[in-house]
Amino acid sequence: MIRFVRELARDRDARETQGMFLCDGDKLLAEAMRSGAELCHVFWRESRDEMAPAFEKEYLLSADLFDYVSPMKNSPGPLFTVRRHEQVPERESSRVLLLEEIQDPGNVGTILRTADAFGVDLVILLDGCADVYAPKTVRASMGAVFRQSMLRMGREEAASFCRNQGLPLYGAALSLRARDVRELDLTKAAVAIGSEGHGLSRELLDLCDGELIIPMCGEAESLNAGVAAAIVMWEMCR
Amino acid sequence: MIRFVRELARDRDARETQGMFLCDGDKLLAEAMRSGAELCHVFWRESRDEMAPAFEKEYLLSADLFDYVSPMKNSPGPLFTVRRHEQVPERESSRVLLLEEIQDPGNVGTILRTADAFGVDLVILLDGCADVYAPKTVRASMGAVFRQSMLRMGREEAASFCRNQGLPLYGAALSLRARDVRELDLTKAAVAIGSEGHGLSRELLDLCDGELIIPMCGEAESLNAGVAAAIVMWEMCR
Repeated sequence: MIRFVRELARDRDARETQGMFLCDGDKLLAEAMRSGAELCHVFWRESRDEMAPAFEKEYLLSADLFDYVSPMKNSPGPLFTVRRHEQVPERESSRVLLLEEIQDPGNVGTILRTADAFGVDLVILLDGCADVYAPKTVRASMGAVFRQSMLRMGREEAASFCRNQGLPLYGAALSLRARDVRELDLTKAAVAIGSEGHGLSRELLDLCDGELIIPMCGEAESLNAGVAAAIVMWEMCR
Repeated sequence: MIRFVRELARDRDARETQGMFLCDGDKLLAEAMRSGAELCHVFWRESRDEMAPAFEKEYLLSADLFDYVSPMKNSPGPLFTVRRHEQVPERESSRVLLLEEIQDPGNVGTILRTADAFGVDLVILLDGCADVYAPKTVRASMGAVFRQSMLRMGREEAASFCRNQGLPLYGAALSLRARDVRELDLTKAAVAIGSEGHGLSRELLDLCDGELIIPMCGEAESLNAGVAAAIVMWEMCR
């Protein structure tokens, strides 16, 4: 059991194989329960929270053992495992965000949190993104990972999906032919955001119907990927 | 010298006393030179970049020694020190962002980067914010720390400053009396952002002329502080 939890914390393949992921902290536990997530195991550090409801499978770990399995240093816990479910959109999607090669788990988690807050229908994760179920992503998502519709797809499949939903697909790019984000109607649209370092791949840009840019002034060359995605999602819902 | 650099990396007081801060990486070095920052020392790891211009005070460190002083694990370097200057706005400020108790250095750095990108005139750092010259802040700012006008002030002083500049001061708050950010004219305004956990202090809200809210839907309770600040700054410049 201990090895299993440690693996969930550290190994993406283990999370896939087991169909579970590991979360940390009482705030996230409250979010998980509120969102109807399927909790599998709860692990307390030294003592159980008296106010918490009873869970079917809960365990008391010594501080040493807890710290050994925990993905976080000095976490007071609890740790808990949640069953992964495909979170597909319940209705037709009119606002879709695509992420390509966003490697930082904190950025991916923040983007999920913002998507949830602004009511984005679907987040599509293309190749090269951080695992949405990695502990750092889950933490940064502040519970959005339990609620936000999201799918993993290849580029071609994602472009077909947008076409089938009747959504124009725009790629965020720092190019001369990109259109100002304020001039586009994004209330029914799909927008792809790439990595800060390299932007979107040529292959994806070729699949897009157009390019958009968030205008900047001064000497700044780019925005943090989580910020760029936030501005796009805000414009989708503004 | 080695102790001095290690202190700059780890100790806020040392950075204040010495009037310098420590930066890491060739990208940031290029940004510093481009922005006209005053470089004091450059430290290379094992070998110097042949393409780099000559610096007055540069040092070659062994890998072991470099790793000992570096604030980052596995950094290829170089490390360099930059003289702190008060970065006061050159003209009257019409767009001002105030930060209170934003403790995460990554968030503060990202906010400086966004402020620089969107042309915000001034960022005011109130009590409890992460040091803008901490290595993590500097890294997340992607060079904005060399360019963005910013000042540290107390609450009362900041409120007087905004009043003297003729700017209404709004506090971002999740309250019923807060006005929708889309309904306000923020092109000449000051907006205060507080911590994700606790929001703005009662003391600061009492100094504000009004409160604003970024509308959210769904079950999300708040946005990441860097995202909330980005939406506000985008609305200032939109």
